[in-house]
Amino acid sequence: MGIKTPYVAVDGIIQLFDSNDNFRGIVLIERKNPPYGLAIPGGFVDVGESVEDALIREMKEETDLDVEILGLLGVYSDPARDPRFHTVSVTFICKAYGEPKAQSDAKEVKIFKLEEIPFDKLVFDHAKILKDFILR
Amino acid sequence: MGIKTPYVAVDGIIQLFDSNDNFRGIVLIERKNPPYGLAIPGGFVDVGESVEDALIREMKEETDLDVEILGLLGVYSDPARDPRFHTVSVTFICKAYGEPKAQSDAKEVKIFKLEEIPFDKLVFDHAKILKDFILR
Repeated sequence: MGIKTPYVAVDGIIQLFDSNDNFRGIVLIERKNPPYGLAIPGGFVDVGESVEDALIREMKEETDLDVEILGLLGVYSDPARDPRFHTVSVTFICKAYGEPKAQSDAKEVKIFKLEEIPFDKLVFDHAKILKDFILR
Repeated sequence: MGIKTPYVAVDGIIQLFDSNDNFRGIVLIERKNPPYGLAIPGGFVDVGESVEDALIREMKEETDLDVEILGLLGVYSDPARDPRFHTVSVTFICKAYGEPKAQSDAKEVKIFKLEEIPFDKLVFDHAKILKDFILR
């Protein structure tokens, strides 16, 4: 049918808790591939997969965490948000326990308190997304 | 890069008001193309276009209404929701004034009071979406 639409990705703001349910911070990754920098973990949705399933799979692949989805933060679709090509991000807020480990596209996984997020090091429009999360 | 993701579409629940700001109902279309039936107006997002711009364009193309976006209802991505191929719908709630006119993919445009929506005539997962809207 010749339909051409942007790529669809999912991103997850993972709120990490310890076993006593104390909030430890947000999980961000240091990207292994361009664009280099700090990012909210995420990835592309496969054909045949719901965005929720894609989110759970991608969070596991990148951080080794099993996340629980708490809700939708928003849909980010500015054509200029990804320097490589037009990607629509469906961004979820989620929750996880345990120790993240860098996997797949992540060179390193880091935990940041909300007050210590280095907004100038974030790639794509992830600084805007995290600000929307904090101000929601 | 060989990335393959589902198609991205937008759908709009249009709350129609008269010039005295009285709520008239929701705008639905009778589809001209398969699958035949009643649907929430919507369409595919173009590469290079935000989902918000796509929504405003599609609502105009299908109903001739200039809509104001009020917020996001949800993202619907069950691989079986569209019988033709996997389509992710970013569904917005919006508001419009004036008289809708059938255009483009719409054979007819109809206005339904919430209590009179014929859920059994809706295509795709639009009955579920409208129930989510009513129960939100």
